[in-house]
Amino acid sequence: MSETQWNKLGAYLKETQILGSIQNTLYWDQNTGMPKKGASWRSEQLTYIAKVLHQRNSSEEFCNLIQSAKNELLNTEANSDNQLFVKDKERNINLLMKEFNRERNLDPKLVESLAKAKSKGYESWQEAKKKSNFKIFLPFFEELVKLRIEEAKQISYEYSPWETLAQPFEPELTLKWLNNMFQPLKETISGLIRDMNQSKKNHWDLSPQSQHNLCSQLLDEFGRDKDLFIVGKSPHPFSITLGPNDYRITTRIVKGEPLSSFLATAHEWGHSIYEQGLPSQSHQWFAWPLGQATSMGIHESQSLFWENRIVKSKSFSKRFFKKFVSAGCSLNNYLELWKSINYLEAGLNRVEADEFTYGLHILIRTELEIDLIEGGLPAKDIPDEWNKRYEQLLGIKPSNDSEGCLQDVHWSEGAFGYFPSYLLGHLISAQISNQMERDIGLIDDLIENGDYQRIIFWLKNNIHKYGRSVNSMELVRTVTNEELSPYYFIDHLRSKINDFC
Amino acid sequence: MSETQWNKLGAYLKETQILGSIQNTLYWDQNTGMPKKGASWRSEQLTYIAKVLHQRNSSEEFCNLIQSAKNELLNTEANSDNQLFVKDKERNINLLMKEFNRERNLDPKLVESLAKAKSKGYESWQEAKKKSNFKIFLPFFEELVKLRIEEAKQISYEYSPWETLAQPFEPELTLKWLNNMFQPLKETISGLIRDMNQSKKNHWDLSPQSQHNLCSQLLDEFGRDKDLFIVGKSPHPFSITLGPNDYRITTRIVKGEPLSSFLATAHEWGHSIYEQGLPSQSHQWFAWPLGQATSMGIHESQSLFWENRIVKSKSFSKRFFKKFVSAGCSLNNYLELWKSINYLEAGLNRVEADEFTYGLHILIRTELEIDLIEGGLPAKDIPDEWNKRYEQLLGIKPSNDSEGCLQDVHWSEGAFGYFPSYLLGHLISAQISNQMERDIGLIDDLIENGDYQRIIFWLKNNIHKYGRSVNSMELVRTVTNEELSPYYFIDHLRSKINDFC
Repeated sequence: MSETQWNKLGAYLKETQILGSIQNTLYWDQNTGMPKKGASWRSEQLTYIAKVLHQRNSSEEFCNLIQSAKNELLNTEANSDNQLFVKDKERNINLLMKEFNRERNLDPKLVESLAKAKSKGYESWQEAKKKSNFKIFLPFFEELVKLRIEEAKQISYEYSPWETLAQPFEPELTLKWLNNMFQPLKETISGLIRDMNQSKKNHWDLSPQSQHNLCSQLLDEFGRDKDLFIVGKSPHPFSITLGPNDYRITTRIVKGEPLSSFLATAHEWGHSIYEQGLPSQSHQWFAWPLGQATSMGIHESQSLFWENRIVKSKSFSKRFFKKFVSAGCSLNNYLELWKSINYLEAGLNRVEADEFTYGLHILIRTELEIDLIEGGLPAKDIPDEWNKRYEQLLGIKPSNDSEGCLQDVHWSEGAFGYFPSYLLGHLISAQISNQMERDIGLIDDLIENGDYQRIIFWLKNNIHKYGRSVNSMELVRTVTNEELSPYYFIDHLRSKINDFC
Repeated sequence: MSETQWNKLGAYLKETQILGSIQNTLYWDQNTGMPKKGASWRSEQLTYIAKVLHQRNSSEEFCNLIQSAKNELLNTEANSDNQLFVKDKERNINLLMKEFNRERNLDPKLVESLAKAKSKGYESWQEAKKKSNFKIFLPFFEELVKLRIEEAKQISYEYSPWETLAQPFEPELTLKWLNNMFQPLKETISGLIRDMNQSKKNHWDLSPQSQHNLCSQLLDEFGRDKDLFIVGKSPHPFSITLGPNDYRITTRIVKGEPLSSFLATAHEWGHSIYEQGLPSQSHQWFAWPLGQATSMGIHESQSLFWENRIVKSKSFSKRFFKKFVSAGCSLNNYLELWKSINYLEAGLNRVEADEFTYGLHILIRTELEIDLIEGGLPAKDIPDEWNKRYEQLLGIKPSNDSEGCLQDVHWSEGAFGYFPSYLLGHLISAQISNQMERDIGLIDDLIENGDYQRIIFWLKNNIHKYGRSVNSMELVRTVTNEELSPYYFIDHLRSKINDFC
């Protein structure tokens, strides 16, 4: 079988991926090291790359390459003795075509304006957050909302504007389906919290150096490869892939929250180990869609698995308690550590939130976004609306914008439609964990034996290795033999509550 | 005056500069953070950028833009009431045309091969240095030498092959002129060293944290702006500019050499403050040749000025001694610190070398390079030749390749023709310092008063602000009213010897 057209398309995709990874390098540097005044030139660089990427992803040349490869595939399909491989190839082509159409519908001027607005949005958000003043961010936020609504219209998908913006994160997501997933949570979580009988918070802290050391020990415990995985510092923790053998995460120290960087490290590790397990290394789908994460919900399920199912488990506290003591932790026993890690309280901060209230944070953002993008809510009303909804759902109210509507980075870069993935991740993680335990035994036992490699092996073979060959809901169905349901997560919360009391 | 053609050319140059600064960001990351296994993908990224840059710098479009801007300039020249500005514009055009011709003569395939070879050269050099085994580096080094000789031939300049490779660093440099500068040094320095009566080396060290703190205090003393200037760590210290408001330097700790990172910090600061003073910020020559450094010799003169004339002065030791004591330094008084900073000894390491023997290190590299590029010396003979010449000129012999011919990064990236700039920098720094003292008083007095801003102001107005509007030798002539001479530097060494005894 001649693969000339196929290889030509592959070479084109590789160059696109080189540019994408350069974009990621610029982003990494911007967040981990760049001096403040470098921001405006960085914005020029990112704008340039975004423009070139858009040109490549919407060019006639690309369209022809996809079409030629498709024709070649159709001609040879019947003769192939490896139908599975042909099916994967078809899916690659279909995903490329779908994204091509999405990109091509966009006005290049809009793409350039968006890149600039994202960069300026991020810059002004940083200042606004520092000064706790939403008004500094407002004009740039308004511009971002306007441009992204325009973008949704230009794509003119079969979906509503907000659904359209959510598609890249969660393919085929609809508001109706999302409501089916989230409504039971909205109804249950508030009830669970009310029933909770939480002991007082144990106030303790660790030096930044001790926290750094613990994070490092955690990653060693999980078996990181230092030659392809590094850790940096940034205001907001994230995970990013800069090349097929170049994985990075960041964390940051929060004063008075000795577990914050530790939990963030576990979380970002989960993202990174998913990326590390994708079929992109020395593999036929490197640089192709199938080598990518299938959805942000799946991505989050992986980070949340390591954060919530591993680090927040009782067996983990038991295993790691000595290291905390050596680091200067003043708690008396591992159960105190476990309770501290799982401390449940309606707080204002999403990233620091416990598993219970986390979902409520997401519900607020999701509903606000939908109102902003398709409900006519003016951007200037965000602080008031934010505070109102926090009071309604969590019974607390931010005292300023910095701990309120400015806390998250996402909107500063115009990323709408992303937040639901965090909560879907909880649901997926719970349902997958259930299956994992049926396959390889109790997660608690695996942790107690330090058998993380067995867990990673299971995840790799049941989740990671699929890349985008199936979409997220198909993947859940394949692995767990049923549709995604919110009830595994609710069960998990209930059992933790019982364990706690 | 319509400037349409001029502005079009400016927009083109800006985009080129964006790409160049992206290249610098990739380079920065590669040296300061990238995980080891990221190297091969980084090489793909750098190869891609090099290819695009070469395309841009040798395209018909660029040629036409330069030509149109030139024609526009000629047509309006006579009517202009600002002849000085027109002269600067002309120089911009001439420099662009000169570089364009240089680039255009290169085969794009060679450019791509070179980019790959540089990246692989750097990678293999790191391993070879670590294992102290030149043979690991040899095949990649041979490839680099071959490709760069080929490059020199393709450029087919009026210069010899080695001269051709040296032109980007030191425009208009010839072997004959260089010999006139270096020969007196070769004859004098050995004599000076023989006459020296050096006391025994004072062995002391500082913790990495203390060294880090001292470097930070040094930069505060010099008045760095933390919002546009940051410091990283890398195996080999360097200075780099990532944007018009984004300047960075690196340093590294050497065990047993408590002053190494401190001197490197002063050195790289000198490079950076030159870049910061170039006419590239909110200025008409931003993105144009006139906004760049005029030569590497001038660049080095700036770094060496801060290292040798400032930090190695007696007055600086007097002023900074208390901070060294606070950092845990065990010396008894500032004179001991001064002697330690100025400790003279024929050593094997160029970067750690004193002002006296430094020149000999450069002479060896320069002569080896010339022999490699145009004298028929085989690359495989480098270790033996290196060791032989060190024994002849400095009376010492490396015990392995790592402390011998593998010590410097330059050849690993195929950078031939750069080393002489270090020694020319010494010459220029000495001659410029002489003029500075005539203009604003003794440097020692300025240091004693902590008046670094006056020094920076003088440097900015007499050196930095000129950018490439004059070449290096014209600049020396303009500032000092005479041709560059090796004797200011020799005088400086003599007076230090006297002071020392």
